[in-house]
Amino acid sequence: MPATRLGKAAMRELLVGLKAMGAAPERSSSGGPSIRMTEYLGSDEKVTLRRSGDGMEIVGSGRGLLYGVFHLLRHLALGEEYPEWESSPAYPIRILDHWDNSDGSIERGYAGLSFFFQDGKPVCNERTKDYARLMASCGLNGCCINNVNVRGNALKLLGGSYKRELKRLASCLSEYGVSLWLSVSFSAPMELGGLDTADPLDEGVKQWWKETCLHLFTAIPNLAGFLVKADSEGRPGPHSYQRTQAEGANMLADAVRPFGGKILWRCFVYNCTQDWRDLKTDRARAQYDHFAGLDGQFRDNVYLQIKNGPVDFQIREPVSPLLGRLEHTSSMIEFQIAQEYTGQQRHVCYLIPMFREILDFRHRVRPEKDRTADRISAICAVSNTGNDYNWTGHDLAAANLFGFGLLSWDPSADPAEIARQWSILTFGDDPEVTETVTDILLRSRDVYEKYTAPLGIGWMCVPETHYGPSPDGFEYDRWGTYHRATHREIGVERGPEGTGYTEQYSPELAELYRNIESCPEELLLFFHRLPYDYRMKDGRTLLQRIYDDHFEGYEEAKAMADSWDKLEGKLDEETFRRVQVRFLEQVRSAAEWRDVINTWLHRLTLIPDEKGRTIYP
Amino acid sequence: MPATRLGKAAMRELLVGLKAMGAAPERSSSGGPSIRMTEYLGSDEKVTLRRSGDGMEIVGSGRGLLYGVFHLLRHLALGEEYPEWESSPAYPIRILDHWDNSDGSIERGYAGLSFFFQDGKPVCNERTKDYARLMASCGLNGCCINNVNVRGNALKLLGGSYKRELKRLASCLSEYGVSLWLSVSFSAPMELGGLDTADPLDEGVKQWWKETCLHLFTAIPNLAGFLVKADSEGRPGPHSYQRTQAEGANMLADAVRPFGGKILWRCFVYNCTQDWRDLKTDRARAQYDHFAGLDGQFRDNVYLQIKNGPVDFQIREPVSPLLGRLEHTSSMIEFQIAQEYTGQQRHVCYLIPMFREILDFRHRVRPEKDRTADRISAICAVSNTGNDYNWTGHDLAAANLFGFGLLSWDPSADPAEIARQWSILTFGDDPEVTETVTDILLRSRDVYEKYTAPLGIGWMCVPETHYGPSPDGFEYDRWGTYHRATHREIGVERGPEGTGYTEQYSPELAELYRNIESCPEELLLFFHRLPYDYRMKDGRTLLQRIYDDHFEGYEEAKAMADSWDKLEGKLDEETFRRVQVRFLEQVRSAAEWRDVINTWLHRLTLIPDEKGRTIYP
Repeated sequence: MPATRLGKAAMRELLVGLKAMGAAPERSSSGGPSIRMTEYLGSDEKVTLRRSGDGMEIVGSGRGLLYGVFHLLRHLALGEEYPEWESSPAYPIRILDHWDNSDGSIERGYAGLSFFFQDGKPVCNERTKDYARLMASCGLNGCCINNVNVRGNALKLLGGSYKRELKRLASCLSEYGVSLWLSVSFSAPMELGGLDTADPLDEGVKQWWKETCLHLFTAIPNLAGFLVKADSEGRPGPHSYQRTQAEGANMLADAVRPFGGKILWRCFVYNCTQDWRDLKTDRARAQYDHFAGLDGQFRDNVYLQIKNGPVDFQIREPVSPLLGRLEHTSSMIEFQIAQEYTGQQRHVCYLIPMFREILDFRHRVRPEKDRTADRISAICAVSNTGNDYNWTGHDLAAANLFGFGLLSWDPSADPAEIARQWSILTFGDDPEVTETVTDILLRSRDVYEKYTAPLGIGWMCVPETHYGPSPDGFEYDRWGTYHRATHREIGVERGPEGTGYTEQYSPELAELYRNIESCPEELLLFFHRLPYDYRMKDGRTLLQRIYDDHFEGYEEAKAMADSWDKLEGKLDEETFRRVQVRFLEQVRSAAEWRDVINTWLHRLTLIPDEKGRTIYP
Repeated sequence: MPATRLGKAAMRELLVGLKAMGAAPERSSSGGPSIRMTEYLGSDEKVTLRRSGDGMEIVGSGRGLLYGVFHLLRHLALGEEYPEWESSPAYPIRILDHWDNSDGSIERGYAGLSFFFQDGKPVCNERTKDYARLMASCGLNGCCINNVNVRGNALKLLGGSYKRELKRLASCLSEYGVSLWLSVSFSAPMELGGLDTADPLDEGVKQWWKETCLHLFTAIPNLAGFLVKADSEGRPGPHSYQRTQAEGANMLADAVRPFGGKILWRCFVYNCTQDWRDLKTDRARAQYDHFAGLDGQFRDNVYLQIKNGPVDFQIREPVSPLLGRLEHTSSMIEFQIAQEYTGQQRHVCYLIPMFREILDFRHRVRPEKDRTADRISAICAVSNTGNDYNWTGHDLAAANLFGFGLLSWDPSADPAEIARQWSILTFGDDPEVTETVTDILLRSRDVYEKYTAPLGIGWMCVPETHYGPSPDGFEYDRWGTYHRATHREIGVERGPEGTGYTEQYSPELAELYRNIESCPEELLLFFHRLPYDYRMKDGRTLLQRIYDDHFEGYEEAKAMADSWDKLEGKLDEETFRRVQVRFLEQVRSAAEWRDVINTWLHRLTLIPDEKGRTIYP
């Protein structure tokens, strides 16, 4: 029988799970326990499930047992026999970044208010416990509870104002192996400490961080470290003191080191007050330009947190070249399951296939261990959760949370299989339901991509809200995300004749992207500026391809909605209606996207659709 | 000697004013009063100033004396001899509409927070008194203190929750002849009264309004009436009950009639959830379409409050055809000195010449009394004031407040002379200062027009904020303000082949606007859709004219800023700097407008500037 707190939680979950499946009573009344748990001491996450007689044995540390139990329950719930499994996670750090503000709002949150903060304070309640269980059941082991843009009361978390609340919260999370991370402000020594500088090389600053960490980590044993957004979108950082990103990160790393703490340092550094008239600055270059040269200069408890693409979570971007560059620095990939640019949990957009592609992506810098999955040391996603009853606003968005968890344990997991499992676990095993839901999930990303901004160009959404079409919305703004469309051409040339972004990749990839003929078509307008009459491989013009995508994308969104409608009566009524209403909005929005993008291009070019479909004047 | 409260206020202002000019002591030490005031009883606003010996006599009711004193002080301050003057105002209702919210914010306010509301309640303090004096000194006699979008605590004003505060405020205003008006919500019977309808023909509703008015008007003797924004931008109104605007307004008119109250009923009714794909609906038509057919159906204490143009306070619009249509209904013109679309009091934009043009505009429906000024019965402007020390944010914006007041007393007043007077009264009589300030004011509207949206097309500003350029900002949105530019043509055709808006004017004007050749060029793109190579009267293409305007507009803005810079040392330092900083922003913004509009048109057309000036790609 398990002895540790984690092991006991595993046992409890096993009993609760079996009972919920109607399996517990019979088993407990039999001669001996048909499922035996063997706990060994340690903090590793390895787990072994093996058949033993007509039952099972689960062997692991407390943590391992917990993941083993959830794995077992999942497979039982899927109607499978006792699975044999010997596994340990691909990454020791698998976390969700919550952009929750201390006032209870969530930046880019689409599922209600925060469950971590209420009335300016951290809270811990039944939902916190359920959240910890949810995390463990997906294989995740950490969460950063507050917004990387640290404001208001959240500034005080570091100072210990809410030490009691944080301690309670951390303890609740730790019962399920979930570590607590905090986003901190780089200028906390000034904001909290009353110092007149936050210069990372200043002795007073170093001392302040050391003392602050001593107090905080001592009070909160389950605190894993800090996440820092520095020198980014107005946040303070080492650049203010002419220090490098490495000097900034290392100073913090030294302060947290005595407590085993880690620093997650975001690489999302770029000029966000760009002048659109400036043709030389290319935001896509920024992360690489800022960090590539610093490789090897970071402490070993610093992880560079790199967004999956070079810009910002668009539905289609190339993989960040920085992920292929760092050789002597721990890197961490940052995904976003909060659907900021991918339909805001009003549209279904199952992102797991995209994440899998990115993890599988070969950077072509070395013969082996060359895939993103092999190059990174940690993984995280911006969370899509909130206080909505169903956690994620759109019921189907929960598949992204589940899928991200499974993929972060095993980056070779199959997105289709994940979708199938999620559907059965969520909606039961009616084959028609499973087939429909799985089909919707697997089509959803392509559909969303088709009716929104074309071929990797991105950013044709409404500024501020990031929802709905606005083709010129960012065009004359300061964010560095331009398409510069004229009536003949569209796109930013990022080859060597343009901004040179392609040259940030390995020679083989640079060659691939540099040449229009070899550049993957789905990324054509990310890399190149092209005339509308450019011929695609299938003979269509670029413009006709875009028109077609938009007409098809709408039709496919409509078809997804129709197929959902057919599930009426096969699901619990409330869930069915809730998703149905979201589909209504998705179809309306898809029509809007189709019409705005097509009209905008038609007004620019005055070239009609070859098939004579309606483009509004 | 004056006996009434108003008369005494007049006397007080005379003494304060003379003393401030250093004139009082000498005069009061002479044998007798050199300025004599003769008050007669009554509430008319007529005033006579006549020379009497080596002094003056001012004759009028209390109100008349007040206006007479300010007139006299103004002319003395201008260094003139005692002026003879016999005058009465053109309109009995001359008011400012404040869009102040009960939380202290101001909708479209650019001069700080509200001085009418703090912490959810009406306030009355020294500034209230100064405001009343300011109003009287400009000849204005009423103010509506709360936003036409009635929300929050402002809803309760009607219910008497703040009766004590309102009474005090009204009393303070009345000392200077300024009547209190309140914006009310048409559905107040539901929001406040707990009724289940606000149907204007419902007996319970009528009764509720009557009782509410009885309580309110009895408590606040200086309450003049209500301003109502109904069936507009989401506000409730009679259309919700299939009643006409007349039925709605008349019901309220009957409720306020026993107390001499009046209803100011806004005509700003249009579909604000339009689909851009709908080519038939034209927002410019809306006011006329909704109200023209109701002429003669309104009670005589209802005033239809009509914005000066058919859309919404753009820098260039034709005069609203509704102003030329109503023959049997009292109409009121609504100007906007809050510079919502005209630079938000960060740009200088002296609007008085525009107002004068609109008041002078002949509607060509009858041989005499055909000008706007002769057709209206009342006048108002959305106020540009706030709690900023200088009242209007931009010091030069105060000229719009002063000018609006003078024009509302005498619509034939000369905008250039108003500017000259305002400059001397504000900055003293240094001729260089007067010449520079007057020149800046008089050029400012043309300059602003040149560098913003071209030739009456309007609406190329950032949605929500309404500041800065965004050529397509409203293009695919719900507000009904489109330009529908393609790479060949731009504009909405509003002639009979188009939306038919031109036909809302008298036959003579319809003919004028309908034909491209006779249409005033500054309104060309308001009325017509034209190709970029359309030849203007001076031989330039339409596109070249727009390019030229934008280059010139920027240069002229720069020249205004430069001429202000030359006043350094001639003005009080703080004022000089405050205005200088605003000019810096205006010049920056003018360059942004120039570059965005020119680039946007160049991308559409790829036609270069004939003079080879820089247009960014």
